[in-house]
Amino acid sequence: MTLFKNKSAFLAVLLITGIQMGQAQQQEKPNIVVFFVDDLGWQDTSEPFYKEKTPINKRFHTPHIEALAQDAVKFTDAYATPVCTPSRVSFLTGLNAAHHKVTNWTNPKANTATDNPDELLTPPDWNINGLSPIPNVPKTIYATPFPSILKEHGYYTIHIGKAHWGAAGTPGSSPLNLGFMVNVAGHAAGHPQNYYGEKNYGNIAGKASYQAVPDLMEYHGTSTFLTEALTQEALKAIKEPIRRKEPFFLHFSNYAVHVPIQPDPRFVQKYLEMGLDSTEAAYSSLVEGYDKSMGDIVKFLKDQGVYDNTVIVFISDNGGLSLQPMRTGPSHTQNLPLKAGKGSLYEGGIRVPLLIKNVGQHERKINHNPVIIEDLFPTILDLAKIDKYQVIQQKLDGQSLVELLTGADENDNWKNRSLIWNIPNKWTVPDGPAINFFSAIRQGDYKLLYDMKNGKVELYDLTKDIGEKNNLAKKMQSKTKALSILLSEQLKSWNAQLPTYKSNGSQVPYPDQIKL
Amino acid sequence: MTLFKNKSAFLAVLLITGIQMGQAQQQEKPNIVVFFVDDLGWQDTSEPFYKEKTPINKRFHTPHIEALAQDAVKFTDAYATPVCTPSRVSFLTGLNAAHHKVTNWTNPKANTATDNPDELLTPPDWNINGLSPIPNVPKTIYATPFPSILKEHGYYTIHIGKAHWGAAGTPGSSPLNLGFMVNVAGHAAGHPQNYYGEKNYGNIAGKASYQAVPDLMEYHGTSTFLTEALTQEALKAIKEPIRRKEPFFLHFSNYAVHVPIQPDPRFVQKYLEMGLDSTEAAYSSLVEGYDKSMGDIVKFLKDQGVYDNTVIVFISDNGGLSLQPMRTGPSHTQNLPLKAGKGSLYEGGIRVPLLIKNVGQHERKINHNPVIIEDLFPTILDLAKIDKYQVIQQKLDGQSLVELLTGADENDNWKNRSLIWNIPNKWTVPDGPAINFFSAIRQGDYKLLYDMKNGKVELYDLTKDIGEKNNLAKKMQSKTKALSILLSEQLKSWNAQLPTYKSNGSQVPYPDQIKL
Repeated sequence: MTLFKNKSAFLAVLLITGIQMGQAQQQEKPNIVVFFVDDLGWQDTSEPFYKEKTPINKRFHTPHIEALAQDAVKFTDAYATPVCTPSRVSFLTGLNAAHHKVTNWTNPKANTATDNPDELLTPPDWNINGLSPIPNVPKTIYATPFPSILKEHGYYTIHIGKAHWGAAGTPGSSPLNLGFMVNVAGHAAGHPQNYYGEKNYGNIAGKASYQAVPDLMEYHGTSTFLTEALTQEALKAIKEPIRRKEPFFLHFSNYAVHVPIQPDPRFVQKYLEMGLDSTEAAYSSLVEGYDKSMGDIVKFLKDQGVYDNTVIVFISDNGGLSLQPMRTGPSHTQNLPLKAGKGSLYEGGIRVPLLIKNVGQHERKINHNPVIIEDLFPTILDLAKIDKYQVIQQKLDGQSLVELLTGADENDNWKNRSLIWNIPNKWTVPDGPAINFFSAIRQGDYKLLYDMKNGKVELYDLTKDIGEKNNLAKKMQSKTKALSILLSEQLKSWNAQLPTYKSNGSQVPYPDQIKL
Repeated sequence: MTLFKNKSAFLAVLLITGIQMGQAQQQEKPNIVVFFVDDLGWQDTSEPFYKEKTPINKRFHTPHIEALAQDAVKFTDAYATPVCTPSRVSFLTGLNAAHHKVTNWTNPKANTATDNPDELLTPPDWNINGLSPIPNVPKTIYATPFPSILKEHGYYTIHIGKAHWGAAGTPGSSPLNLGFMVNVAGHAAGHPQNYYGEKNYGNIAGKASYQAVPDLMEYHGTSTFLTEALTQEALKAIKEPIRRKEPFFLHFSNYAVHVPIQPDPRFVQKYLEMGLDSTEAAYSSLVEGYDKSMGDIVKFLKDQGVYDNTVIVFISDNGGLSLQPMRTGPSHTQNLPLKAGKGSLYEGGIRVPLLIKNVGQHERKINHNPVIIEDLFPTILDLAKIDKYQVIQQKLDGQSLVELLTGADENDNWKNRSLIWNIPNKWTVPDGPAINFFSAIRQGDYKLLYDMKNGKVELYDLTKDIGEKNNLAKKMQSKTKALSILLSEQLKSWNAQLPTYKSNGSQVPYPDQIKL
């Protein structure tokens, strides 16, 4: 009888625990929405990520990004790589680009490097086919993308918009191979052929290129701008996990604001009236269109009662484009006071806006620690409360930012971490300001750049000189030397790739081999 | 103490019940896989659906369809409409095509009728934009597609391959609006531009048409035939619900065997060696390729231990194509002994193979009752044990076949039901054998056809004359009259559409107004 009583009590406990576990599973895991923007510069929002509103901030209208910042941690010193695919692969794998070796954007066509010819240097044999979730695919980084882990842990995983993780003919070209259950409009291409529904987003018989956006036929021939079509698809897709009461991961990777810079008719007039030329007004309208998408999705989350239990991340994949003639004005002035833009290892090319809203957060916070795109992999798994997971083979470079979401801004460990970039590639035909064949390190206030082609290093104190105008390399030789060594050691530890001289096939020296 | 004991016992019962309910929920609902083939003729399998193997059956090799027939009910007298979109819309809505008024195939371009010009008649204002799940979309049938109902009842719903339910620019062009959570390669187009991975399934810059197959970039530039690529996508997609232990609905709607008739290199050699010409060998290879897909998917279901709990349906959307020069040989001989082929209301155009494997079925059965494609809507919901559901506005025409799956073949109610077709359209430029402007009724052994253009009716006894050679209209005037009335009444009850005379705009007469 005693035994029976105990057994009953045991069963009752089991039962109650069982019920609680069932409920907890639904409520415990937060939803995760990542607003991944393409080519959005650090200041291309009306929410400033600098210590003050800059003239650039002032020309943009992004009320929904501002509103999100009210409930989020704003990272002022967040970084990505200078071009898209490397950042996207770092995001999905938690690896630094020097480590995963997808160091330039991937051509939609397989086995086709995107480097331009150079008279002096030859780029290394980098992973020109991008990311692969299965082994032995030539010229890919074989790694576990975190959406696969989320899916295995009960997440309903959705990709909307630009993918650009791998070349056609390889599994990485399909988000369905990277842990996403649902994919709308993501493939191997890195930009849309056309933003207009009237132009079928490029899908016109005899005119379609590889950049024609797939999956959106229901909007063909309508006046639905691409940004809006993808927003509608996102809202449609997240309805299902909300109905199922399942945690979801939405990767909202709208094609905006990448070229072609075509005006979003919903917003362009305002910018023309501000006096911007047609190109810059169009660019601003693409930005505000993206902001509208964010607003619509956040409103839907609130209407559905799931906003509080949703982690929201907002980030760009690289700095703002600063090349003539795609942008107006002299090249490399579009991100001032930051130097240069997309493609460059100066701040204009790699510093990006980053907001992270935690579950239940209704408080504005600012964090000045340097963080980088590969940090999002462990951060997201951490926020999803997934502490045990297996990855194929990658040793993560990113670090979870969760302690920065709750703790104070002051944190020496974080402040003194070193962030690394390595671009052994030729992105543009003219070598620009820190564009083509550069590596760099940021540690604390200082940033060292290594110009492989010219065998020179530069040193800047970012705190005092965010515009990287005052090269301290000669003045602060010991700092320069120390950072050169640190950068070289880190590159070696990853077997990071360097270009070779065309003349003799030998590799360019490491930065610590350069004479000051 | 007694109370406590009872309470414990009660809790224990609850606990056990709870566990059982949890398990039962997972196991109770069967998975549903529909192999929906495009343009496959009634005899284009090595499994005969006639009383004997015909010469046509003998040239095909479809071992996996034969194997499925061992575990299934074979319907010898199953029907669809004579062209694809009407059948596909009937399948999803449970409505007869005369009722839903998508009576011809839909152009991928919105608001564009596909009818050819005719010197005598003008087609009616049919639903040229196809199916719509939302109201007030011009020229669509607004109805609830059954995958939406399955999804609401816990099914994980997947569409792979050809969709062709609605025109571009309308919601029906996207399977994601029709109840599918996952869509791979389905859109507004009705055939693939190209079956070859080497040709990117048509996606070649400057050459892509609206028929270029979307979503399959990972196979571009590879030797993966389209049929195989879609099979791989199906296997990938069903892994997730199997892992989740959720019931799933897979609509596997491979583009094969629709034109362009391109040889599937895996199988074509055999047919060339049989002495078939290159076109017919290619056609046979498309059929065997589809059969291989079925085999691979069934094997996967077995390997995963879910085959027994899976309902499998195999059907074609219309009769086999019988037009020169797409097929070889004189036109309309490709389905003999059936008369004519795709597009025709003679048996060659509308009689289709149908197998239904019930849960746990390991027995071969044959059923001779006349059944039609709209029967699948209520059949599938019945097999999914969904007895309460709401549809927007449609009054179902289809009837659940479930009693035919378990009961005897003899069933007068079923035998004497009337099946209706109405084609007020001009599908091909030459009016063919019962192609363009025809309606028809089958009741019991008899079938009456109404030739609207020539104002004539024909009557056949299908039991004795499956080839529809012996027109009994004059010999059996009372039967002819009775069926003419029945057909007319049914058309009127649906407000079925008839063409009008160009000369005066008046509608053609109903069949019961025709003088014999």
